[in-house]
Formats: sequence, C-alpha cells, structure tokens
Amino acid sequence: MLTSISGFPELLPRDQIIFNQIVDTIRYQFELHGFTPFDSPSVEKTSVLLSKGNDSEIYGIHRLADSDGKKDLGLRFDLTVPLARYVAQRCGQLTFPYRRYQIGQVWRGERPQAGRYRQFCQGDIDIIGDGDLSLSHDVEMVLIIHRIFRAIGVGNIIIRMNNCSILKGLLLLLGVAEDNLARVMRVIDKADKISANQLKISLMQEGMTEDNAEELMIILTITRKGEQIFHPTILDELLEKFDPRNGQIHAGLEQGEQATYGYRILESGILELQEVVKLATELGLPDNIIAINLSLARGLSYYTGTLYEVQLREYPEIGSVCGGGRYENLVANFTNRKLPGVGISIGITRLVAKLLEVGILQGKTSTIAQVLVTNQNTKLTSYYMIIGDTLRAGGINTEVYLQDKPLGHQMKYADKKGFKIAMIADESEFTDGNVIVRDLRNGQQECTKVESALHIVKQML
Amino acid sequence: MLTSISGFPELLPRDQIIFNQIVDTIRYQFELHGFTPFDSPSVEKTSVLLSKGNDSEIYGIHRLADSDGKKDLGLRFDLTVPLARYVAQRCGQLTFPYRRYQIGQVWRGERPQAGRYRQFCQGDIDIIGDGDLSLSHDVEMVLIIHRIFRAIGVGNIIIRMNNCSILKGLLLLLGVAEDNLARVMRVIDKADKISANQLKISLMQEGMTEDNAEELMIILTITRKGEQIFHPTILDELLEKFDPRNGQIHAGLEQGEQATYGYRILESGILELQEVVKLATELGLPDNIIAINLSLARGLSYYTGTLYEVQLREYPEIGSVCGGGRYENLVANFTNRKLPGVGISIGITRLVAKLLEVGILQGKTSTIAQVLVTNQNTKLTSYYMIIGDTLRAGGINTEVYLQDKPLGHQMKYADKKGFKIAMIADESEFTDGNVIVRDLRNGQQECTKVESALHIVKQML
Repeated sequence: MLTSISGFPELLPRDQIIFNQIVDTIRYQFELHGFTPFDSPSVEKTSVLLSKGNDSEIYGIHRLADSDGKKDLGLRFDLTVPLARYVAQRCGQLTFPYRRYQIGQVWRGERPQAGRYRQFCQGDIDIIGDGDLSLSHDVEMVLIIHRIFRAIGVGNIIIRMNNCSILKGLLLLLGVAEDNLARVMRVIDKADKISANQLKISLMQEGMTEDNAEELMIILTITRKGEQIFHPTILDELLEKFDPRNGQIHAGLEQGEQATYGYRILESGILELQEVVKLATELGLPDNIIAINLSLARGLSYYTGTLYEVQLREYPEIGSVCGGGRYENLVANFTNRKLPGVGISIGITRLVAKLLEVGILQGKTSTIAQVLVTNQNTKLTSYYMIIGDTLRAGGINTEVYLQDKPLGHQMKYADKKGFKIAMIADESEFTDGNVIVRDLRNGQQECTKVESALHIVKQML
Repeated sequence: MLTSISGFPELLPRDQIIFNQIVDTIRYQFELHGFTPFDSPSVEKTSVLLSKGNDSEIYGIHRLADSDGKKDLGLRFDLTVPLARYVAQRCGQLTFPYRRYQIGQVWRGERPQAGRYRQFCQGDIDIIGDGDLSLSHDVEMVLIIHRIFRAIGVGNIIIRMNNCSILKGLLLLLGVAEDNLARVMRVIDKADKISANQLKISLMQEGMTEDNAEELMIILTITRKGEQIFHPTILDELLEKFDPRNGQIHAGLEQGEQATYGYRILESGILELQEVVKLATELGLPDNIIAINLSLARGLSYYTGTLYEVQLREYPEIGSVCGGGRYENLVANFTNRKLPGVGISIGITRLVAKLLEVGILQGKTSTIAQVLVTNQNTKLTSYYMIIGDTLRAGGINTEVYLQDKPLGHQMKYADKKGFKIAMIADESEFTDGNVIVRDLRNGQQECTKVESALHIVKQML
C-alpha cells in the first residue's frame, strides 16, 4: 500500500478494487446473517473515548483557527466504544437483541513505523442483549468467522479460542489474589512476546510462587503447543486435575474458600467453551479450525467470557486478522442497564495489505467496467453514448471513451486498464445501426445491431 | 437525524438502512458509468488542505497526549483536494482519462447550528484528463446527474447550469478590470442572499457604474426568473446584444481591446454551454431539467468552465443537493502538468436527512433480514441454525432468534423489526424434518420439508 503520510494508507485503482471486493464480501456475509448497518460518527467526546482508550493513541480534533487547543472531541479508535455509547443512549429506541454491523475507519495515534497504520478499516459485528444473551450467539460468531474467511478465499484459518473464566479460575487456584488478577492477566496477555524465564520472573513479581508460576506456564504451553488442532481432552484434564475433591496436585495450590471459588469459575469457563466448540462442530465447522489457547487474553478490558482470535494458517506472520469475544456489560460506563454482548472485529486494512503484499490477492484491472465503447469519429459521439447506455440498461458497467485519439491509442488504453470487451463503430456501422463487439481477451469479434449488442456482450462475459 | 454531538449525525437502524440504500444506488450508477473507486485517507497535511480551504473550517488532529498542539495534519473538508493531491503525486501510475468515484465522510469546523453538519457524507465523481479533456465529458456529467436522481426516486430535479466564461466575459464587457473579476464574482455568488439594492451597492463598490451594475442585474434576473425552464434564446440574445460589431447598447459599455477580449470569452462560454445542453438533450435528457442560471458561480475557486448545481423541484428549500463543474487545472497547486477535469459532488447526508424529514423516504424496517427463524425449543437450536443456513445458501438474509423467549414474544420482535417471514418448528416438525413458513404480512403459512423451505420463501417474498 502507498502512504503519502506515514501510517495513512491509500491504494492505486487495481488494489482499491480488490479492497472494495473484500469489503463487499464481508458486508454480504454480515447482512446474510441479519446484522443491520450502523455508522457511528467518526468523532466522539474525548471523555467517552478515554473510558477505554489512552491519550497517547487517541487523536483529538480542533479547528485550526482555534489556538486554545480544546480537547473535548476526538476520533474513534475502534468501533466498539462508539457502539457502547450509542446503545446506552438509544436503548429505548432499539430492539434487542440488537444486531449491528459497521465497516469503517478508525484512527490511532501510533508512532510512524512500517506496518503500523494510523488509519485503518475495521469490519465489526456485535449482538447485544437486554439483560441476558444466550451462549448460542457465541457459537454463531464462530460460524460467521469461518464463513467470512472462506468467502474471502484466503485458505484455512485457525480460530484460537479461550474463555476469560478459565484463566481467572486457574489463577485463583494457583494462589493469585482476586485484586491482583487483572495485573497477572496483563502479564500473560504479553506472554508471546517475552522469554519463558522473563515470564516466570514477571509472574513471581506479581506474587506467585515459583512452583505455581511453573505450573501455570506448563498449562499455557501445553495448549499453545497443541494449538494446531483442538484437543477437547485438555479441558477435561484441567477439570480433573484441579478438582478440589480429587486432592491437590502440589503443596502450593490454594486451599479452602478461594479454591472452591476458583474451581467454580474455572469449571464455568470450561463448560462454556466446550459447549461453544461442540455446537459449532455439530453445525459443520471443520474440526481443525478451532485451537484452544488458554493464554489468549486480548487485553481483557472488555471481555468476560468467550474469546476469539483468528490467524491465517498459511500466513501466521500476519498475526491476528480478527478478534473478539463476549462482554458481560458493554455499556457499564454509560448506563446501569445490563446489556451483555458478543462481537468480532476484522482488521480489513491489515488483512488486505498483507494479502496484496504476498500476492494471494492480485489486482488485475484498473477499471470496474467490463466494456469500453471506443470513439473513432467525434461526429458520432452521441452514437457511442447511446451504445453505452444500451449496455448500462442491462447492468453492464460501461465506459465510453470521449477523447479524440486514434483507435490504436484507445486499444492500448483498454489493455492498460483491463477492459474485457471493446465496442467499435465508424460511419458505415452507424449508417446501418450496427456496432462491432470485440472480445479483447481473444480478439474475436462480431458485428451486430445495437439492440442486440447487450445480448452478445453478456454471452462473451 | 440524531446528533449526540452537535453537527455529527447518526441514525437509528430504519433510517440507516435507507441511507445505505441511497448510497448503494449512487454507487451503482457511478460504477455503471465506469468510475473506479478510490478512498483517500481522511487525513491530509494541513498545508495541502489550506491550499483550498481556510483555517476556520478545517479540523486539525493531534494526539491527546501531545500538548505542543502540532498543526501539521488535518481532516479533509471535501473529496476534491485529496483527489488533486493524489493525482498529482501518482500521475505516473494512473491511466488518463482517470475516472474515479469516492463516497466518504468529510469534516468541517462549522459553528454548531441546526442543519449544519460538521461531518457529512459526499458522493463524488471526477474525470481527469492528461493535457486536455473533451467537452463531451461535461455532457456525460449532466446525464449521470439525471440518472442518479431518477434512480433515487425523489421526483423531478432542476440542473442549474452556467459557464464561468459567460460571467467573466459579461463583467469584462461591463467595465470590470481583469484584476477585479474574482472579487466581483464573489459578490455575485452571494447575490441570492442579499437584496437587489444591496447587490447594486456592492457592485458599485467594486467599481462598476450604476448603469452597468443595473444592466448586469437585469441579465442575471432574467435568467433567474426563467430558471424553471431552459430558454436557449437567452444565450443567443446575449451574444447578439453584446456583439461589438452590432454597436453598443449603452454608453457605459467597455470599448476597444477589453470589449473584444470580453466578447471572445463570453462567446466561448456561451458556445460551450449551448453545446453541452444540445448534446444532453439529444441524448434523451428531458428538456425541463436544465435551467440556465448566469448568476451561478459556486465559489469559483476551482471552476473555469461548465457549472452545475442541482435542486429538487418539489423541495427547493433543501437548497443544492449536488454541484460541480469543469476545472482547467485541478492540480495546479501540486504539479506543473496540466490535468483538466470535470466532476460533481452529491451532498448525501443533507439530501437523505431532508428526505427523511419531509417523509419522501421512510424507513419501514429495522432489519435488512427478510426472514426470522424463531426458536420455540432451546433443545432444537442446532435445527434452527441449520434452517437459517439453508436460506442463506440461497442468498436470503436470515436471522435466527437465539434467546429463550415465548413464541409470542418472538412474534412481537419480528413485527417490531419488520421481518416479512417467520420460520417456526417444534419437536413434531423437527422429527419429520419439517418447518412452518409463515408470511407475516398476511398470516398465511405452509408446512414444508427444510430442503424446500428456500423455494417457498422465495415465492412468498
């Protein structure tokens, strides 16, 4: 992708066409599953944005003429915060479960560096319930993810899954105090980026014993090793292993009330995750798609249940192209009403940029028109425009060449832009109400009445 | 439209669905005419934005954490400036004539007031030539405008047209010095907003004699009165009236070199405008669509030839819903290469907001799905999801209700959101592989095998 200002990508026509095709594919799947469009404004109050974001990634806006540097408005950095504000504010006018999709730009004040976008396009769906939202919606998300990436045609994907309660229960069982859970989870969320030794030290700094830190790392590592294929046994083994009724596995493990509490949370997370996977599989999800990954935490500031993160199997280096999960109360910052939800977000700019870069997606034409009506004789311009309109009436995207250039020049133009068909007419064709339809891919051509041209073109395409 | 922050509109689902339908209609027409998509970044260097905008309408952006108030980046205030910068920068990689469309948001630092948007959506097309661009492109724009508004279905439109050279020539003939043209044109551009007397005084303040100011106002008024219908005679009369060879109409008229120069410009503008109107009419444009309006100036900072401005005949109070024109050199600020163009811009937010307000457009449903698969028995959730997928495989937008609620509640939900069809199944239908397809608009229903449900649904829709 081109960037004229670092971090703000723009595309040449052939790549923009591909980009829009991907967006259309995603939108089609969203609508097929009954999600309704919503476009939040790009701008929110900074107080709203700061409820989930931080001031080093949020862009404020101000009129250039205003030198007082007002900071009351800023650009959205994701599509979830504006959704939460909207739903809290409009909940009396919405019908729940509210299913919405939004495909739009977000802005982040990243330091300029390769591969970091300061503006990028996300495609989000969320389902928000009033009071409660059944676990089947979490299953629906898995199926939709699978269908979208199949429709885009980028090969196999891995949906890494976890449930927030599993990690939370494990940590409680391994002696982490409830007040300290969020801090330890943040350490684990970054586990991929540090060495095993660093991770262990960090966990111990958060108050875990060496034994428990190692125990935790074994559990996380096992599942990470196994992430190419889903092992349902892992979850059953964990339940078995930590069941307080079975006696403890080593001396450092938590006892008493915290153990019971921790186990209950662990169990609820495992049962939920198993249920989601089971239902998705029953509904036709191939069984090598889901990979349980117990270290998956996705920042955790929103999420409370199911977690998703999608990688392309053949291109793991792209990293996460889609993520999301279940949140017990999206709008807690804005209203007392309980509105739980589940959602996913596709990083469209990152996905398309990478697929273009590695050549899986390749823009072949610089036009979305299939047909070029050439212009051999400026006196016949009206005739050419009528020919164009005849094709358009049949839904064929058509460009009429309106410059005064030799036919050879126009043919080069057609070739360069990637038209499939050229329409050609001069005085003699005009007199007979004819036009020549030429297939530019094989040079075959046919002379026909203008009224029949649409039919011929449709046959050739 | 709702605005949670003054000037930043957002919609409820039923209105958003309508809004997106209008955008889709416009996009379809753009693509049908061979325009290729381009999405410029929302952000440009402020130096680029200030080349055509002013600092009281441009929003700068800065990371909230940066207190130094950097002013190097800002949000686009139209789609033309980013296009110009892009074309100048990428002209070696583009094929000319370059035909692009862009439908996107722009931001303007307006003072908050009713009906003033600080963020709104525009739909633009432009055709840019390398060196030259034939007048036929100006004709194509008129035809496209007509087709788009016909496709949107908002009744008749008036395309007010002018040519910059006509006004320029007239002013030269009426004694305005060339250096003063831009200032006088700005006065005329605002003529609609002031009284006749104020206009005359303003013109005289710019150095015109009282006689010449009155003469000019008569010409502008004549054409303004006549703008409901195109009078081709007006232009011929002007040519006749000001032809230096016919003697002057009154003593104050310019003589000698400026008269010859002014007349040449007037004549070129009139001939161009007549040619555009003639060709458009030959190509089927109804003859009550175009209204010549010689006071039309559209700011003039871009334009050098043909000018367009579109009003809805039945709703003139909406004001201009589309405008544009010919510019001899879009990219003059950025490169020496001569790249003339012609383009139009549709104010989609303003248009849709008004049409919703007056009730021409009316959102009837809050869902884009036609079918709701109801959920009578949570044990059968998989069955319901399979029914949903069967319909989706046939391209039917379908929502599966996944909450555990009584059927009556679900029927109210279906009614509130505006589904057309409900699918109903309980144990007995499941056992037989059946489902009941109910047309919610007339209550008729049919029990059918799941495999045949798609067929029945398609018949009902």
